[in-house]
Amino acid sequence: MSGGRWSEPGATAAAGTRPTGIRSEAVRQSNLATILRSLHYAGSASRSELVVRTGLTRSAVGALVTDLVGRGLVDEQRASSDGSPGRPSPIASPRSAQNVVIAVSVMVDFVAVAAVGLGGGVLASVRVERRRVEQPVDAMIATLADLAKQVRRSLEPDAVIHGVGVGIAGIVRRADNRLVFAPNIGWHDEPFGDLLAEALGLDVEVSVANDGDLGALAESLRGVAAGVANVIYLSGEVGVGGGIISEGVPITGRVGFAGEVGHLPLNPDGRRCSCGAVGCWETEVGEDALLRRAGKDPSRGLAGADELIDEAASGDAAALEALAANGRWLGIGIAGLVNVFAPQVIVLGGLLHRTYPYMIDEVESAVASRALDALRKGVRIVPSELGIDSSLIGAAELAWQSVLDDPTRVAG
Amino acid sequence: MSGGRWSEPGATAAAGTRPTGIRSEAVRQSNLATILRSLHYAGSASRSELVVRTGLTRSAVGALVTDLVGRGLVDEQRASSDGSPGRPSPIASPRSAQNVVIAVSVMVDFVAVAAVGLGGGVLASVRVERRRVEQPVDAMIATLADLAKQVRRSLEPDAVIHGVGVGIAGIVRRADNRLVFAPNIGWHDEPFGDLLAEALGLDVEVSVANDGDLGALAESLRGVAAGVANVIYLSGEVGVGGGIISEGVPITGRVGFAGEVGHLPLNPDGRRCSCGAVGCWETEVGEDALLRRAGKDPSRGLAGADELIDEAASGDAAALEALAANGRWLGIGIAGLVNVFAPQVIVLGGLLHRTYPYMIDEVESAVASRALDALRKGVRIVPSELGIDSSLIGAAELAWQSVLDDPTRVAG
Repeated sequence: MSGGRWSEPGATAAAGTRPTGIRSEAVRQSNLATILRSLHYAGSASRSELVVRTGLTRSAVGALVTDLVGRGLVDEQRASSDGSPGRPSPIASPRSAQNVVIAVSVMVDFVAVAAVGLGGGVLASVRVERRRVEQPVDAMIATLADLAKQVRRSLEPDAVIHGVGVGIAGIVRRADNRLVFAPNIGWHDEPFGDLLAEALGLDVEVSVANDGDLGALAESLRGVAAGVANVIYLSGEVGVGGGIISEGVPITGRVGFAGEVGHLPLNPDGRRCSCGAVGCWETEVGEDALLRRAGKDPSRGLAGADELIDEAASGDAAALEALAANGRWLGIGIAGLVNVFAPQVIVLGGLLHRTYPYMIDEVESAVASRALDALRKGVRIVPSELGIDSSLIGAAELAWQSVLDDPTRVAG
Repeated sequence: MSGGRWSEPGATAAAGTRPTGIRSEAVRQSNLATILRSLHYAGSASRSELVVRTGLTRSAVGALVTDLVGRGLVDEQRASSDGSPGRPSPIASPRSAQNVVIAVSVMVDFVAVAAVGLGGGVLASVRVERRRVEQPVDAMIATLADLAKQVRRSLEPDAVIHGVGVGIAGIVRRADNRLVFAPNIGWHDEPFGDLLAEALGLDVEVSVANDGDLGALAESLRGVAAGVANVIYLSGEVGVGGGIISEGVPITGRVGFAGEVGHLPLNPDGRRCSCGAVGCWETEVGEDALLRRAGKDPSRGLAGADELIDEAASGDAAALEALAANGRWLGIGIAGLVNVFAPQVIVLGGLLHRTYPYMIDEVESAVASRALDALRKGVRIVPSELGIDSSLIGAAELAWQSVLDDPTRVAG
């Protein structure tokens, strides 16, 4: 037995710490980020409350808040006295109307664009349904630029746009915001981020990510899984997208490609998938599988799904059977994900949050018989409350990250 | 659309930063850890080299090394001049013989105990094969205590034992080092860490983890995946254990339960698994499946596998066909893991590193037809070089973590 190859620990953070020493210059920037993040995610707060939230000293908090006020990111207002002795602590709030990001969601069945203020409030949004046809990327980019223009018209004249975040139902290379493959939309290898940046002409960073990854981010920051460390987000459309957060960290894998849970080969003798493989999970639990099982034309898309859900609501046996069959396969796949990831919460988004009520028994029974007891006991399966907006809200959070990581990017 | 629930960002680190502000006291401790980690993983270094490795200033490095020398963790020796102008920089080295951890590996087919010095060198080790019978935990604990005593006899008289790390082929709750379930060993809910701590009587922390998780740690720190950020480790024995590292961070899930890849339900109409479910991946790729396919008695365990590999080496058709069939299923599961995790390297350990040469074609063909192109192109499948020692080496690294995280635990 030998110790094997030596490696510089900085090359992998497997051992759990930062690769290099901390210089004191970095501490202030990190503490500014901590304050801004707290105001963005947990809302307005007095200096005293920020001391409690961050563990920093009162004088440090005061100096950091003053810095953020100087950068126009934060407003500070003296609170009225609450009757307790001493001066009331001023209240710091994110300047939401003046600090904005543009969020974009490109799904198979719809596209949406929103303006989201610092603090997470949606200032304006617009959504349009798409037909299930192959649409050239150029036409889509033009549509998105037009929608963004509409959304921007309603902003305050002094609003600063800090970034653009895009969620897309496909595999995205995060480093250069390139769409590598969107099997259910029909796009291959498109420089989506660059094209959109050019069309928008905003001179800010455009960040593109997979819709499932962004849905997981949104649910863990602002949705039903808020505050939960181990989360799986599953979004059913034609395909099944997913995003995974493990101990608070989004799982991205190499260049952001991870999370293609819809392509787990769960039925090795099953149907051909749009990706070219056989028996992928999404061939059993996606919108197409549901419509096919109910004897409907899969190409009807969302309209067909709407109809089927209406039929199920009125007790139609064929619709309920189709939903139950999808549910059994949903449960089998969820059992596998439970065994691999040991999540605490599985959030069902997209079409799944609407169909789940009709398949709860089948899902739970399949999970009970296939997930390891110790892992199954710790997990809850819950429909999203953000619904089809998960990816859009996640896109906004993606756009905020560079300012939240380093508020000194915004000049004072 | 609403912003959903507000959450304190500290509750989830999904957004990627530490939950609270950094106080300057923590900086020194963190920098000490950075230096010690560098010496442990990347080996001895001059002060100048440590400046390069860590990004800290020369005076900071000098003070930090002096501190570590005072704690008995590091030796510093003046190097002979290399002929370049100025005083030669002293060389800092981990004091390996004086600073030791005990590593323990409890597998289905064998147990092993080793003493590993700071820096990762194995000072002593012992291994015994186990029969494939249900063995009470108490008897196992007594065996391990005895093996540890043997190993400690060969240590220097002034050696300090800093911790004990245990890898075990089962589901482990990390917080209290409890073995929750080891289906292939036959143990349920045993306080393994506490029992072993009592039997060893060493008055140091005993940390227990899943063997697959530790194998992944070992491979990413000191094995074929050293320096790689996205790694999956698969270890075949009776079951298939796994460990996953994503962007340098081990995926643990809730209380450390993640990584049970052997229980992905890849053949929903397949065989009953030892976990009680049907069609788990390990029912198709484990040692039992291999022996069964070759017409051998699965209860023969490692001896049967050894025989089968010998037969394959001499061209026996039945043996080669059994290996090929296991290989096809191995490839199907690997394809799923590639789609979900987007790894760069998949390391095959345990029995798999011995059988892989006979199933490369089947594995590659199954992966090619079932993994998404963009993800498949970025991944290499490689046999472990650490072999059956991966879990043991990982157990040593687990035992080192508390000292590496905070060297001030060791009194000066």
